[in-house]
Amino acid sequence: MAVTGVLRPGHVVLRVLDMDEAVNHYVNILGLIETGRDAKGRVYLKGWDEHDHHSVVLAKAGKAGMEYMGWRVDSPATLKKMAADVQASGLATEMSWIPAGEHLCTGERFRFTTPTGHVMELFAEKDKVGNGMPNTNPDPWPDGLQGMSPTRFDHCLLYGDDLDGTVKLFTEVLGFSISEKVVAGDGQFMIGAFLTCSNKPHDVAFIRNADRGRLHHCSFILDNWYDVLRAGDIISKRNVSIDIGPTRHGITRGETIYFFDPSGNRNEVYAGGYIHYPDKPTIVWTEDQIGKAIFYHDRKLNEAFLNVYT
Amino acid sequence: MAVTGVLRPGHVVLRVLDMDEAVNHYVNILGLIETGRDAKGRVYLKGWDEHDHHSVVLAKAGKAGMEYMGWRVDSPATLKKMAADVQASGLATEMSWIPAGEHLCTGERFRFTTPTGHVMELFAEKDKVGNGMPNTNPDPWPDGLQGMSPTRFDHCLLYGDDLDGTVKLFTEVLGFSISEKVVAGDGQFMIGAFLTCSNKPHDVAFIRNADRGRLHHCSFILDNWYDVLRAGDIISKRNVSIDIGPTRHGITRGETIYFFDPSGNRNEVYAGGYIHYPDKPTIVWTEDQIGKAIFYHDRKLNEAFLNVYT
Amino acid sequence: MAVTGVLRPGHVVLRVLDMDEAVNHYVNILGLIETGRDAKGRVYLKGWDEHDHHSVVLAKAGKAGMEYMGWRVDSPATLKKMAADVQASGLATEMSWIPAGEHLCTGERFRFTTPTGHVMELFAEKDKVGNGMPNTNPDPWPDGLQGMSPTRFDHCLLYGDDLDGTVKLFTEVLGFSISEKVVAGDGQFMIGAFLTCSNKPHDVAFIRNADRGRLHHCSFILDNWYDVLRAGDIISKRNVSIDIGPTRHGITRGETIYFFDPSGNRNEVYAGGYIHYPDKPTIVWTEDQIGKAIFYHDRKLNEAFLNVYT
Amino acid sequence: MAVTGVLRPGHVVLRVLDMDEAVNHYVNILGLIETGRDAKGRVYLKGWDEHDHHSVVLAKAGKAGMEYMGWRVDSPATLKKMAADVQASGLATEMSWIPAGEHLCTGERFRFTTPTGHVMELFAEKDKVGNGMPNTNPDPWPDGLQGMSPTRFDHCLLYGDDLDGTVKLFTEVLGFSISEKVVAGDGQFMIGAFLTCSNKPHDVAFIRNADRGRLHHCSFILDNWYDVLRAGDIISKRNVSIDIGPTRHGITRGETIYFFDPSGNRNEVYAGGYIHYPDKPTIVWTEDQIGKAIFYHDRKLNEAFLNVYT
Repeated sequence: MAVTGVLRPGHVVLRVLDMDEAVNHYVNILGLIETGRDAKGRVYLKGWDEHDHHSVVLAKAGKAGMEYMGWRVDSPATLKKMAADVQASGLATEMSWIPAGEHLCTGERFRFTTPTGHVMELFAEKDKVGNGMPNTNPDPWPDGLQGMSPTRFDHCLLYGDDLDGTVKLFTEVLGFSISEKVVAGDGQFMIGAFLTCSNKPHDVAFIRNADRGRLHHCSFILDNWYDVLRAGDIISKRNVSIDIGPTRHGITRGETIYFFDPSGNRNEVYAGGYIHYPDKPTIVWTEDQIGKAIFYHDRKLNEAFLNVYT
Repeated sequence: MAVTGVLRPGHVVLRVLDMDEAVNHYVNILGLIETGRDAKGRVYLKGWDEHDHHSVVLAKAGKAGMEYMGWRVDSPATLKKMAADVQASGLATEMSWIPAGEHLCTGERFRFTTPTGHVMELFAEKDKVGNGMPNTNPDPWPDGLQGMSPTRFDHCLLYGDDLDGTVKLFTEVLGFSISEKVVAGDGQFMIGAFLTCSNKPHDVAFIRNADRGRLHHCSFILDNWYDVLRAGDIISKRNVSIDIGPTRHGITRGETIYFFDPSGNRNEVYAGGYIHYPDKPTIVWTEDQIGKAIFYHDRKLNEAFLNVYT
Repeated sequence: MAVTGVLRPGHVVLRVLDMDEAVNHYVNILGLIETGRDAKGRVYLKGWDEHDHHSVVLAKAGKAGMEYMGWRVDSPATLKKMAADVQASGLATEMSWIPAGEHLCTGERFRFTTPTGHVMELFAEKDKVGNGMPNTNPDPWPDGLQGMSPTRFDHCLLYGDDLDGTVKLFTEVLGFSISEKVVAGDGQFMIGAFLTCSNKPHDVAFIRNADRGRLHHCSFILDNWYDVLRAGDIISKRNVSIDIGPTRHGITRGETIYFFDPSGNRNEVYAGGYIHYPDKPTIVWTEDQIGKAIFYHDRKLNEAFLNVYT
Repeated sequence: MAVTGVLRPGHVVLRVLDMDEAVNHYVNILGLIETGRDAKGRVYLKGWDEHDHHSVVLAKAGKAGMEYMGWRVDSPATLKKMAADVQASGLATEMSWIPAGEHLCTGERFRFTTPTGHVMELFAEKDKVGNGMPNTNPDPWPDGLQGMSPTRFDHCLLYGDDLDGTVKLFTEVLGFSISEKVVAGDGQFMIGAFLTCSNKPHDVAFIRNADRGRLHHCSFILDNWYDVLRAGDIISKRNVSIDIGPTRHGITRGETIYFFDPSGNRNEVYAGGYIHYPDKPTIVWTEDQIGKAIFYHDRKLNEAFLNVYT
């Protein structure tokens, strides 16, 4: 098969302080679809065009942030093989198997912690619930969409200390490519890496930061730049805390707007970006152009954007 | 690696009746970039965001159509392995190795004919010429673009007789998925198959047809629906022969417009479409909904669209 | 005042064969808002961004078509003056005053028939019901919009015989400009006139035709080309009879799609177009370019578009 | 006529510090078209879809700002009448007639100073040079456009002290409507007024400010939100000083981006906005919602935006 191994970001578990407020935000404003609640009180959500049972899980906690992120691999055999590879790599810590069913509608998951302190999982099985339309003669979009109605959970950007270790783990063990990176000093010191396991410009990104295991934002994909405008309108109509945008990223070329959920987790909705292939040269951004790399239009460092994370 | 094997449609060689007219069409109107001419008089072109030396080759001939299509694989080792697999499959005919350099800036190619009569090639090496911007601190698009300025050659739709054999070859030997198919009769008789080796909704498609080895259209990708409008405007401003559009496809959800090059080869420019994964259910279109499948808005069979090909 | 006299198309009364089907079409699919029903069973509708009580009235009848069209003038004084001018012109027939209240929430109307056989009205007063948002600190769009949700009723295109007489009435008596016209033969024989009383490219248009008093289409305005795509999607999702589009008009440059209500009245939703001023030269289309004038992209005469009207 | 009196902003004369830099900015980056230079060294420019000879004049000066703004009226008779009305109003000062030909291709102009200290002109005649396309069978846009290529000069926003006097002059003498206003304190103290003589949401706006006769920005109109994105990209590609955007205004609903010319004059490019009619209620923004009024998405006062002007 041409698309193999790690297929995509399969889920992100977000810690939220107040579940009702969080559900209102993610369902009515962002526009995800609730697909279930479990005995632990976790709420399962998906973007309308995702076929899997869930891609976002909200978990009540005393403090915001990302609990873990899960990656869908192509088969149970790959799951076993990759788990062994991760173990053999010596790059991961706190490894364990989570039994099937611990997440609703999901098979067993192999959990590990990256050198940047992020808990990650690999899994091969999750029930398909469809995208709200039949698989025979479907329309292009379903009725009844709400809010910004992104099609899919797209990626997370994460902050942590041992960036080199995590990049090594994702590229050498999990098969990701570096689509873009930010370098400092003499150009050899990597401070940010944008990693892809697909034709998307990124599936996850990491920024070097003294605090370990942190979430900068989780991102959802929209169809186009008008949807980004509409997202901005909804942010204002619903009094959501905005961070920055609409604007374009230099990195990935994506069209973007950032805002916060009621717990303070940063969300992005995103459109555009190029088609990545593994033989495409890695784009390098130098530290002096970091403003342009992040926010292409105003080319300015924004301290809150860099330093506020959960 | 997560994206492996056959990476993408790497080139299409189009037969054109008059080279000057063809170059005018593909460069000034469609907006590809000329990257070279060879001793046989062939003209090499690429979309602006493609890094490889070329993706379209124009070859003077007495009759329009597609001479062959080439597929970029991830490495010389994969090329050797896939060539052997194709040979072992018993599904391909007229197999041969084309030496490196026969195409400008391109390594050796393994050529074969599919059961539908289409000449296909696999290759692993082509020089990178870049996308008109530096790999360090690039802007999102280069200056000096012309015409419709698609970012990339995207796919071909091909007509031929032994559809089942070709689909078997692409899925079982070359690792493609069937993203969508059209079925007739009792639902078991496949009359069209949309195949992908990537996260794109299709990289090539085949329609069952008595004539072998035919080209319905070759398609180029645009960023958005406004670019499709602009393409329509350019078609009219430059007196290009239009086929149909702007409209949306039911199949792939793509936003599209069709037109003809001066030799009668059909071109498409295309935007939108979903993100495909190999575990996504195949979408099935039944014969009675073929109108909606092809042209979602007017839902009508268009005889010229179905029966005009080169 | 700088915008004076006839301000805008204030209402169109459409004959429909089945009121429930018509209301479903105009409210749930087109996305107008119902504002009232009167003792005669007529249903009053408006686009969401119109402040007046209604702009479309559906009236049950045995035969589709336009019953009449009403024009909002700037004041009761102008209404009196213009009624007198119309009477004095000798160009109108069947003149009468309709008392206030005959339409819900509407003042008295001066009714007359144009030389092309169309019943027109002038009126100065209609209750303001607002656009669903406060006049203090409003958002840019209200919640709860449905269907294509055009902002406003925009114009009608009408067919009739004495085109010269009607154009003379609109330009010399009612103060309209000719923004564009279509001419035949030696260029002196006008077969179509696009008339504006505003900065819009047209507020009404007339095509020369042997049948008198006919409606070709009534049109509603959308914000942009993506809304035209979405309208096309809704047409297909809801099995509405489509006529043609999405495409661009040569005349007005508008981005358009045409479809039919369940009674067979043609509707258009429309975006774009230029800003008109009365000193802008009239654009002239010659008969040989009529295809391009009407449908800019495919530049073809479409017999159904020309010959189907109500 | 239905559109009468003052038709539109006909020209703005901008003071620039370095003419070559200014021409490069307004022609190559903003994308206006140069139509002439006069003996005083002034450079005349127009948006591509304007038919008049010029709408922007660049004049070398020691200090940036707006020298004056000119308004096109519908006829020489109206010019005489309005000049008399302005004189009789007692609201204007420093009145004079500028002879025909002082501006290239322009008739005589009646000049006066508003209570806010802005020099304004009325004129009735300027040569038509067309929009780069024939008036017979035109395409929707011409070839060879550069930069952001706005269609027209749209409006200015001006700062000055006697806001009430200027609003009285524009509404009571020149026939403008107040489309939107910003009020402070008990709601009776107007601090901003958006004035229109057309169906556009504004043709000029004034903000109360201690300094007299100042320019906040001059604005040019684009077709759509994608053009605003492209403008943002061009700003960054060409290292233009950006102010803020892309974003939406609460006032007018317009989609916008702001930047500076090399002399420090603020420019805006703008798309969208509603259709105004003189009977539409004035929208009122209260001081506590001023952030949302100006920048709808982030709803924050931006000191630089408010306090930087020329």
